[in-house]
Amino acid sequence: MKRVYLDQIAASPVRPEVLEAMEPFFRESFGNAQSLHSAGQEAAAAIEEARARTAGLVGASADEIIFTASGSESNNLALKGLAWANQIRGKRIVLSAIEHLSVLNAARSLQKSGFTTVTVPVDGMGRVDPGDVRKALTKDTVVVSVMTANSEVGTLEPVAEIARICRDNEVLFHTDATAAAGHVPIDVKADGVDALTLAADQFYGPKGAAALFIRKGVRIQPLIDGGIQEAGRRGGTENVPAIVGLGRAAEIAASGLAGRAEAIRPVRDRLIAGLPAAVPHVVLTGHPSLRLPHHASFCVEFIEGEAMLLHLDMKGIAASSGSACTSKALKVSHVLLAMGIDHALAQGSIVFSLPETTSAGDIDTVLEAFPPIIEKLRRMSPLYTKFLEEKSQ
Amino acid sequence: MKRVYLDQIAASPVRPEVLEAMEPFFRESFGNAQSLHSAGQEAAAAIEEARARTAGLVGASADEIIFTASGSESNNLALKGLAWANQIRGKRIVLSAIEHLSVLNAARSLQKSGFTTVTVPVDGMGRVDPGDVRKALTKDTVVVSVMTANSEVGTLEPVAEIARICRDNEVLFHTDATAAAGHVPIDVKADGVDALTLAADQFYGPKGAAALFIRKGVRIQPLIDGGIQEAGRRGGTENVPAIVGLGRAAEIAASGLAGRAEAIRPVRDRLIAGLPAAVPHVVLTGHPSLRLPHHASFCVEFIEGEAMLLHLDMKGIAASSGSACTSKALKVSHVLLAMGIDHALAQGSIVFSLPETTSAGDIDTVLEAFPPIIEKLRRMSPLYTKFLEEKSQ
Repeated sequence: MKRVYLDQIAASPVRPEVLEAMEPFFRESFGNAQSLHSAGQEAAAAIEEARARTAGLVGASADEIIFTASGSESNNLALKGLAWANQIRGKRIVLSAIEHLSVLNAARSLQKSGFTTVTVPVDGMGRVDPGDVRKALTKDTVVVSVMTANSEVGTLEPVAEIARICRDNEVLFHTDATAAAGHVPIDVKADGVDALTLAADQFYGPKGAAALFIRKGVRIQPLIDGGIQEAGRRGGTENVPAIVGLGRAAEIAASGLAGRAEAIRPVRDRLIAGLPAAVPHVVLTGHPSLRLPHHASFCVEFIEGEAMLLHLDMKGIAASSGSACTSKALKVSHVLLAMGIDHALAQGSIVFSLPETTSAGDIDTVLEAFPPIIEKLRRMSPLYTKFLEEKSQ
Repeated sequence: MKRVYLDQIAASPVRPEVLEAMEPFFRESFGNAQSLHSAGQEAAAAIEEARARTAGLVGASADEIIFTASGSESNNLALKGLAWANQIRGKRIVLSAIEHLSVLNAARSLQKSGFTTVTVPVDGMGRVDPGDVRKALTKDTVVVSVMTANSEVGTLEPVAEIARICRDNEVLFHTDATAAAGHVPIDVKADGVDALTLAADQFYGPKGAAALFIRKGVRIQPLIDGGIQEAGRRGGTENVPAIVGLGRAAEIAASGLAGRAEAIRPVRDRLIAGLPAAVPHVVLTGHPSLRLPHHASFCVEFIEGEAMLLHLDMKGIAASSGSACTSKALKVSHVLLAMGIDHALAQGSIVFSLPETTSAGDIDTVLEAFPPIIEKLRRMSPLYTKFLEEKSQ
């Protein structure tokens, strides 16, 4: 059976060059970067090289990068660390309604310490209106967090505009660029963001390696207290191989980013055009053009996403019905609901994120496999039966 | 030049069998454990196997293991997570004076939220008196944290006794077993501890892989909020290769633990006996018998630890002068000061932690290299000159 893996955002294989860069640090150059002897110095040098490479992907300076172990950790560090360290400015946090759970739940957890959270809406395509952010700002607002791109619907947010509004109002601005970094150009200096989350596993780097960019001079309190690692901002022995892998993956992602985006976009567009043509009652979710180049997401009427995934899996096709972090909870996506998609339709969510190796032929495999699966599932769907009955009247 | 690496606690090479177990999860079985498709299920199964293996090392049940990315993260999760989730019991935390910085600083950070910290002393050998813990308990004490073994002086603490006292007083008990797990037998059920930290890199597993044991039924609040990973107790995409490596390393560590300890102890004892015999004014730090089997630590009078390390490094010998997490801060160890060692002597700290492959010949290399280094450094030491002058009077 031909296998087609279209769940790049949930997980990707590490690039061979990245794994090759990591390998010496498991057994040969295994030192602790904090040790004073040569083995330690070797590890420390590798980390600093990786820091510069990681910074390069988003236009940051090396000393503005804090290494963490996941995008979720970076988001928690950003939200909690900025809120705690800057609460003298106020205890109000502004978020978009479609943030990742690690942002939403970090903010919820801050509510136990007296912080309040205000949620800015999105339109039907998942876009935040910067004007809404401006309206949500009060003089006691300490942090705004709006993601760069949403992983469930692919929509790109107007980050530079929101950053400008925050700067004008002297409010800190964090953006979760987990799904975006490595896929679209990012320049923290040009955009003027104060903090940005990125994760290596989104651009063919290893799991367990992520970073938080923090603009020089911005105060942040550690999430993981401990030793003097990461300039005292994140305790714990540095995961040298993972950090080296992040650096190498960032370096590769940065070089030729535009070319790779141009290459994958038409393949993705084949799916965006083909799927609604092959199956009736399928709608694209998210923005048609302002979206991640490797991302296509849909709602399929009268069907549950999970059933589609399992049937596709039996045909060798891997996709997702939303965020991997919530998929097993089988809840309807808060992102789709925030976009005004009704509950029943939102249950039919399906998300394809294309590895850079995806070919037009892979898409044709999906377009061929999809209609009979949908037909079969709809035959079993009471909602569809009801729809047909109503239609025939 | 023959190289002798005696800094096992700071860092060790990953075992070949461990790396072999990890490798398929970088590129072949790269799925996200939360994905519903087959690639995800494969990752999820590997994680659950690793969870059972990790639990086995400390006598826990698999569902009592939360995977984290470092011992420091586990310690932060334990201290903050237990304190926040159980603050209805009170806001007082009891620690030993020689805890790792990730415990001490996590507790310090909790003080900003109204928690108070009480420190229990240690004796001259670094042992906590369980009676002191009992005396420190009040009815508003929520958590006690005393480490299983100290990484700087090797001393083993009376964990079972302290756990019993805590249980009798209905106070939660956490022990940081980072330096101990994999080297001495641990049984969380027999000892009755509520939470325990362990880290793979201490027993030839990968960096970036650690765990917190939490006894079933004990409430804990996440440090990293996010998705439903780790039963909602730690958000973030699971680092599958690292977790698999932790599981395999734990499995190997558990089998034949006693035999490995018996094998390394006489090699270590050769150093404990030999170093003070080869060089005058050298004293063992920590407990002479109740200590980690692979650990030998000393204070060398009239000399600074860093100078010794750099001269040893030039001879191909890697050692430490304390915790790797603080070594570059060049501060005198809070552990040695808490043991009543005076400031000047504490500056001459040197710690040898022996990889299991260390031979008697390696120790002889150290015993040969050490005296001329010390002699040279002492010739440059004003403290030593003063000592000689006073002696000759």
